Amino acid sequence: MNFRELEEKLVEFRDARGWAKYHTPKNLAISAAVELGELLEHFQWESDGEILEAVKDPAKREAIADEIADVVIYLTLLAHELGIDLDEALKLKLRKNGEKYPAPERPP
Amino acid sequence: MNFRELEEKLVEFRDARGWAKYHTPKNLAISAAVELGELLEHFQWESDGEILEAVKDPAKREAIADEIADVVIYLTLLAHELGIDLDEALKLKLRKNGEKYPAPERPP
Amino acid sequence: MNFRELEEKLVEFRDARGWAKYHTPKNLAISAAVELGELLEHFQWESDGEILEAVKDPAKREAIADEIADVVIYLTLLAHELGIDLDEALKLKLRKNGEKYPAPERPP
Amino acid sequence: MNFRELEEKLVEFRDARGWAKYHTPKNLAISAAVELGELLEHFQWESDGEILEAVKDPAKREAIADEIADVVIYLTLLAHELGIDLDEALKLKLRKNGEKYPAPERPP
Repeated sequence: MNFRELEEKLVEFRDARGWAKYHTPKNLAISAAVELGELLEHFQWESDGEILEAVKDPAKREAIADEIADVVIYLTLLAHELGIDLDEALKLKLRKNGEKYPAPERPP
Repeated sequence: MNFRELEEKLVEFRDARGWAKYHTPKNLAISAAVELGELLEHFQWESDGEILEAVKDPAKREAIADEIADVVIYLTLLAHELGIDLDEALKLKLRKNGEKYPAPERPP
Repeated sequence: MNFRELEEKLVEFRDARGWAKYHTPKNLAISAAVELGELLEHFQWESDGEILEAVKDPAKREAIADEIADVVIYLTLLAHELGIDLDEALKLKLRKNGEKYPAPERPP
Repeated sequence: MNFRELEEKLVEFRDARGWAKYHTPKNLAISAAVELGELLEHFQWESDGEILEAVKDPAKREAIADEIADVVIYLTLLAHELGIDLDEALKLKLRKNGEKYPAPERPP
């Protein structure tokens, strides 16, 4: 799946349910923050080592994957509302990062 | 670009700079929250109408697009660290959402 | 209650339960973000007018108050861990804000 | 300073500048999230040990204290808008926490 296919599916899903009226920029940005909070909850009291151990359990891994997906979903809907092509935005950001942090000649 | 291509590019970029040691689950989740905070800053004092007007300006739209891209980038790197296939996670979440919220027979 | 009394109560509560070991700076900062996400959830799909109407219901108001309190609690514990006197920090910030944004001669 | 004094100062400061119209529930909640993002930025790439070392520097400690204060300030203004007495809310939450997590007979 690429970013445009995801966007299309999400907009179709939303329109079939009449939810467009709730999808204002502020609501969608807040929604992304709500889901990111739920993602962070998985990392609240555990060390990095404990997290990496915990995700070996498929159920735990799926629970975290669901939260990551939810944030990406709301960001994709937000980009849609704002007329932002997320695919282009990601390519542009990768290019900017490459210019801002040039790779060393020899990998470290 | 699809999710796997994005993941590949990001991992390659990071490894060329020796940054893997900083990319722990907690650091990447915190980084996503930092960037989401920067995204929210664009919506802090403006109404939805003002935001939709403001993004007609290409510079403003690119600034917001950069922040959305940054959150997606850190979430993709986080998924990578946790052994989560983001493409699969998104497909699964779309399927779950479809089961949780069945579409009405006639679109509203 | 002032900020020092709150800090004392929280540290006493925590020590009586042996939780100090979990209260690292990163864990507490993540916890504040988790609770802020739960606070934001109350504002996710409602307009400002609907929110102000909804908090007339005491149960709804208490639910939101609990989330605000939770964020303040984790920030107070974080300040404690970092050796920050939150009371002093607030006074200093108010002073800085007064210098950064001088009041107009006549109130608007 | 106690919570009511902080609330009074903040409301007075805001009214002297004519900012009340911007202080809607959603704007204030988003503002708290923006400032929390800036707080998290201080913990993004450092370990807990490095953070505790870094805050020995007064300038670093003040920078972090400023961000904590900013989040508390916006939450106090949000509580004000919603008719929530933050002092009461904190006392109630402490009581609820005490009931939810009873202290062991002997401290651990």
